[in-house]
Amino acid sequence: MARLVMKFGGTSVANVDRIRNVARHVKREVDAGHEVAVVVSAMSGTTDQLVTWCEETLRRRRIFDAREYDAVVATGEQVTAGLLAIALQDLDINARSWQGWQVPIATSEAHGSARILDINGEELVRRFAEGKEVAVITGFQGIHRESGRIATLGRGGSDTSAVAIAAAIRADRCDIYTDVDGVYTTDPRVVPRARRLARVAFEEMLELASLGAKVMQVRSVELAMMHNVRIFVRSSFDPPEKIDPHDSPPGTLICDEGEIMEQHTVTGIAFSRDEAQISVREVLDKPGVAAAIFGPLAEANVNVDMIVQNVSGDGKTTDITFTVPASDYQRSLDVIGKAKRAIGYARLDGATDVAKVSVIGIGMRSHAGVAAEAFKALAARSINIRAITTSEIKFSLLIDAAFTELAVRTLHSLYGLDKAA
Amino acid sequence: MARLVMKFGGTSVANVDRIRNVARHVKREVDAGHEVAVVVSAMSGTTDQLVTWCEETLRRRRIFDAREYDAVVATGEQVTAGLLAIALQDLDINARSWQGWQVPIATSEAHGSARILDINGEELVRRFAEGKEVAVITGFQGIHRESGRIATLGRGGSDTSAVAIAAAIRADRCDIYTDVDGVYTTDPRVVPRARRLARVAFEEMLELASLGAKVMQVRSVELAMMHNVRIFVRSSFDPPEKIDPHDSPPGTLICDEGEIMEQHTVTGIAFSRDEAQISVREVLDKPGVAAAIFGPLAEANVNVDMIVQNVSGDGKTTDITFTVPASDYQRSLDVIGKAKRAIGYARLDGATDVAKVSVIGIGMRSHAGVAAEAFKALAARSINIRAITTSEIKFSLLIDAAFTELAVRTLHSLYGLDKAA
Repeated sequence: MARLVMKFGGTSVANVDRIRNVARHVKREVDAGHEVAVVVSAMSGTTDQLVTWCEETLRRRRIFDAREYDAVVATGEQVTAGLLAIALQDLDINARSWQGWQVPIATSEAHGSARILDINGEELVRRFAEGKEVAVITGFQGIHRESGRIATLGRGGSDTSAVAIAAAIRADRCDIYTDVDGVYTTDPRVVPRARRLARVAFEEMLELASLGAKVMQVRSVELAMMHNVRIFVRSSFDPPEKIDPHDSPPGTLICDEGEIMEQHTVTGIAFSRDEAQISVREVLDKPGVAAAIFGPLAEANVNVDMIVQNVSGDGKTTDITFTVPASDYQRSLDVIGKAKRAIGYARLDGATDVAKVSVIGIGMRSHAGVAAEAFKALAARSINIRAITTSEIKFSLLIDAAFTELAVRTLHSLYGLDKAA
Repeated sequence: MARLVMKFGGTSVANVDRIRNVARHVKREVDAGHEVAVVVSAMSGTTDQLVTWCEETLRRRRIFDAREYDAVVATGEQVTAGLLAIALQDLDINARSWQGWQVPIATSEAHGSARILDINGEELVRRFAEGKEVAVITGFQGIHRESGRIATLGRGGSDTSAVAIAAAIRADRCDIYTDVDGVYTTDPRVVPRARRLARVAFEEMLELASLGAKVMQVRSVELAMMHNVRIFVRSSFDPPEKIDPHDSPPGTLICDEGEIMEQHTVTGIAFSRDEAQISVREVLDKPGVAAAIFGPLAEANVNVDMIVQNVSGDGKTTDITFTVPASDYQRSLDVIGKAKRAIGYARLDGATDVAKVSVIGIGMRSHAGVAAEAFKALAARSINIRAITTSEIKFSLLIDAAFTELAVRTLHSLYGLDKAA
């Protein structure tokens, strides 16, 4: 017997038929003797409709009260949870729905993007034991205790809810059911020979998620790493009855690296075309200059990604290059332009037709020369590298956007990630 | 300054535009210096959609867990309350939404048709005074304290919520905004010369509501009578800006009879075609026979309305006639048929092509001969009366359904209810 959290996203509960399909997935695990907590999102489309209503209600003001927004949008998950409880009971499974405030899931006061502070899982665990009861819990929301008001975690927050609940009830595993069947070495639409990974370490998944792999929300992976919650990413579209719960189903386990026996040097390749590069030329090489550049950008809520600063050649000036989301390009140029006197630089230039390609693998920590192989392979294809950043378990290259696919395929083959033809 | 409850039903909040219209109604009262609690229903159509989803989720079982049903359908009002709070803030009015469990509105455990047990209005009143804050409260729902779960009051329960909240905060008046502009002497579709009543006594409204006037839910009128909550029924479709809050707007005040100066003998005529008549013939005239008939009907959940038993002529047997909803006719015959031995009767007969016409007025208490006038007027039109029941403030006549309109119009004129041509 194991204790499981099963999380189903919006497309998996998009209508009554899919909710009944989810119930059959849950029944399979219950029949196998497991204790189950289910975390659900809103039926897909519902949250968008609710958000639209909030926006349309506002005419004169520019922003609405996030507490009211939360009260409105939180209803989406509430509906799914009740319907799934009904669907489970229809299959003769003892089940009840829990809204965030009923558990309770205590959150911070940051309505619309609240953080989970604490979950009291005692009652859920007691009911597993006493009533063999499945808990169906609304994702994405909790309660701010002091005000007694509903707070939502922001888009994608249901993953975070699932992981936090898994930690609170000390679940053996947190299954994330989604519309893909796992985490791949890279995007299969770009590299048809991409392979599904059987296991990924938390740190690797964190990099993959930050770099654009849309399978898991970054915060939920952080939380899983912190509490050592094993996550299993799998498809909700496999027919529930065809899955043997004692078999290992297709999917990817995100776990501590200690659980990963057969280590590859490189685990995956991520890429993003939504990048813009800005270079600040001939900056005085003195303390405080980085703060003078990135302080104003942070104040303007620009999310700066890669930052490259080379050691000054002449000991007087240097160039600083960084990347921002393409949509923030012009705004970032304006911010740096306005701060010219405070920063002190000669020129500003940049480009939006750039892409970032990242190579990730915890094996890099113990293998030297991994990046050097990449430089060589890309040079052989005449792909110019504009900038390089590295960390312990990944390196990222900024290249011309036109070469994105070629670069990803080249690196995918180079590091032995292609599946057998 | 007065303290008001303003209640808006589903058609009054059917979409974002109507919700904004409601906000302008509220603003008018706030600007006039009143303290306001608003009670809202779900956007019309929403509750039906939610109920349908519950029903569709069920395939094998025949009834669903009412606690889950409540969790699902209660979301409808939650959305409206949040959106109205946003709309009010957009008009620079300080407002916040309250869900039933937040107030809290404590209910019984009868999920789907719960009764309000207690409302703690202290926090609302404190906020009126301190923050000049409008409270926007979800109708139709509350919380069962022991289980901590949401319970709904059943269809039309928002009226009851509004009256109960008015009692809890000691409001000066409870305004029910609806799609009609008040209570009429009878259905204007049948009698074009029906008049809107300026005032109706609680007892009269209770009879009118029980007898099919759809303006107010019976339970809400009972509650208002018990706590002496003055209800004002008015239209939500009047343009809010054209109403002077210091003027008396069109509508009907439902109040204690002491507040009604100019008393008419008859206030209104109600009628229902949804009736069936059953006569149990030659029943032994002995104690316990009524119990033997109506006990099994009550157990079968048949709602018996008129009951007529004449004094036995021969001292041995009598006939007992009663009416039931037309949809329960066949079932009622079956129930009485099965209980034939226990009851002891000779024959059973009945009819479904009957209608009940009721004449209501608290003035009847002090006026003799009111019913006699009706008998005479109907006889002049050759309308046969099948059965008669009377109470202190009303009498009901069972007639052939074909004569319904003629009878209603005749009585409406007879008692001087027609408006001037």
